[in-house]
Amino acid sequence: MVADEIPGFWAVVPAGGAGTRLWPLSRAGSPKFLHDLTGSGRSLLEQTRDRLAPIAGDRLLVVTGEAHQDAVRRQLDALGPEAVLAEPSARDSMAAIGLAAAVLERRGAEVMGSFAADHVITGAEEFASAVAAAAAAAADGWLVTIGIEPTFPSSAFGYIHQGEELDDHPGVCRVVEFVEKPSVPVAQQYLETGRYRWNAGMFVVRPSVLLDLLAEQDPAFAATLRAIAAEPERLGELWPTLPKIAIDHAIAEPAAAQGRVATVPGSFTWDDVGDFDSLAGLLGDAEGCQVLGDPGQVLATGASGLVVPGSGRVVAVVGLDDVVVVDTPDALLVTTRSRAQDVKAIVATLKEIGRADLT
Amino acid sequence: MVADEIPGFWAVVPAGGAGTRLWPLSRAGSPKFLHDLTGSGRSLLEQTRDRLAPIAGDRLLVVTGEAHQDAVRRQLDALGPEAVLAEPSARDSMAAIGLAAAVLERRGAEVMGSFAADHVITGAEEFASAVAAAAAAAADGWLVTIGIEPTFPSSAFGYIHQGEELDDHPGVCRVVEFVEKPSVPVAQQYLETGRYRWNAGMFVVRPSVLLDLLAEQDPAFAATLRAIAAEPERLGELWPTLPKIAIDHAIAEPAAAQGRVATVPGSFTWDDVGDFDSLAGLLGDAEGCQVLGDPGQVLATGASGLVVPGSGRVVAVVGLDDVVVVDTPDALLVTTRSRAQDVKAIVATLKEIGRADLT
Repeated sequence: MVADEIPGFWAVVPAGGAGTRLWPLSRAGSPKFLHDLTGSGRSLLEQTRDRLAPIAGDRLLVVTGEAHQDAVRRQLDALGPEAVLAEPSARDSMAAIGLAAAVLERRGAEVMGSFAADHVITGAEEFASAVAAAAAAAADGWLVTIGIEPTFPSSAFGYIHQGEELDDHPGVCRVVEFVEKPSVPVAQQYLETGRYRWNAGMFVVRPSVLLDLLAEQDPAFAATLRAIAAEPERLGELWPTLPKIAIDHAIAEPAAAQGRVATVPGSFTWDDVGDFDSLAGLLGDAEGCQVLGDPGQVLATGASGLVVPGSGRVVAVVGLDDVVVVDTPDALLVTTRSRAQDVKAIVATLKEIGRADLT
Repeated sequence: MVADEIPGFWAVVPAGGAGTRLWPLSRAGSPKFLHDLTGSGRSLLEQTRDRLAPIAGDRLLVVTGEAHQDAVRRQLDALGPEAVLAEPSARDSMAAIGLAAAVLERRGAEVMGSFAADHVITGAEEFASAVAAAAAAAADGWLVTIGIEPTFPSSAFGYIHQGEELDDHPGVCRVVEFVEKPSVPVAQQYLETGRYRWNAGMFVVRPSVLLDLLAEQDPAFAATLRAIAAEPERLGELWPTLPKIAIDHAIAEPAAAQGRVATVPGSFTWDDVGDFDSLAGLLGDAEGCQVLGDPGQVLATGASGLVVPGSGRVVAVVGLDDVVVVDTPDALLVTTRSRAQDVKAIVATLKEIGRADLT
């Protein structure tokens, strides 16, 4: 079955973040969302577009950095120039999504949904169903977030504490509160209650509701976003004045405290591909080495983990468990799945020693 | 003090062996002895030449494969064309060293000493003293081998069982027998007796004694070697008829059984750099990563082992102990010191899958 388009629904895709824990695959100049990280032949951005097209049609708005707008346009070449908003600088998610809301408010969008360009989702039908349910509640004025069924007690994600079901929207629940990344034991307790879901940062809302919620917290912020949408030529002048704040802190948490946020449980699988451990798991936890790229370039003996042959050379791995080898034309990373978080420190060190060209 | 030249002494340097356990650094087309494996700025062959020059002057004869003779000549450019013998094909050490003996017999050499081109020795003075003592006994007709003081119970080397001191050559002992590579417990017993030494394949002998010993075992072999020395133009015709046998089996073991072999204890350190574990130990067992090459190209965090940056790329290693990373322009190896022996299998696999170009 093919999902139906949701009338008046616009998809917003923030495409930002350097993905430093995926260095040297992901770089500042060529971030994670532009890469095919699943071996599907499609970049994460393209996969995001593919996933949204059945429900949003061509009503897609990507918000990305000026440096990446050409690459984004190339990957989404069927879309017109109106489909990409270029941020002059990175000012966190409230500014990015808020600008999209202000633009869509003027375009007469009924409901918008925001979905990061660099996450991996399987279960397109389930995803579309969840967004449709969220859009219906959003049309009634709710700020709706899609909550992911946790599969393990992760300490890497924030959680949504889910409350009672809405009377007029079966399957949609109130949000009691958003909670920050917990410890693993606390996360384990969350899972046992069955009332907590991962916060994947997916918000579905009327553009005007989003901007009005923001205006309650920071009237100037909302007014500036609407001013830019009205006079796009003022973007360069006004953008640098916007606060740098995440949308969760700016509006989702205060609105939840006021009982104005709802959540739709998503039964699809979701991964933010935060590091090479996550990527290795995503590609399969089978014995032996997962290869992202041409398996003919990898010789592995008595080894497990992830190998990314990306420079054309043969990569031989002998006798290492849970190893991560990422080979690119100008930099090579060798680490383990358990140390995958520390890759970020390598990027910091490269900057310190004057090799920012490699980051 | 500088070692004295040993009158009438010629140094023979067999330069062969692909060093497959040092792949991808060592290749069939660019074997181990042509590489600077110690970071000294000199290849193993050049270091061998440097070590022999004080005792042999320009009386050096390198025996190598035809494919390598140009590279050898380039590295030893001060030597004339007479200094290199090119083997049409690899026929093991008896043929290589025997041909050198036959050539040197005609050149009137009194004593020759054979020293592999791809071993690492520290203690040039001690080396020169041992060779001088060996040469004195060799002049009296002995086949003399230099025995290395074992520093651990290695199961990777053959051993020399040392007997009584010779009456007329203080410090030179009879060889009771050569023993093949023992198990570690047996090697431990050898060490406890104090009468066993590592066989480093260093033989010092009169050329005619060597050839006569060979003639006792295989008259045709010795006769053919002398025929080639007399008529070098017959090399291509006669070489393929020579047996493939190691000098140890061909003459050293039978001669030891007859009580005609002596040994000089060498107090210098010696390493055959057989694999990356050995190489890592040679470069230092300090904490952290040993780097063979430009340390500025390596970022190591929480890692120990050996990194060879050889392609101009930055190599980042995070959180791996005793790792071995060898980066070359067309092939990359990632393994551990304990699995260093298995690198040979990768070379075999590459040949099987039609990538002999990388070996």
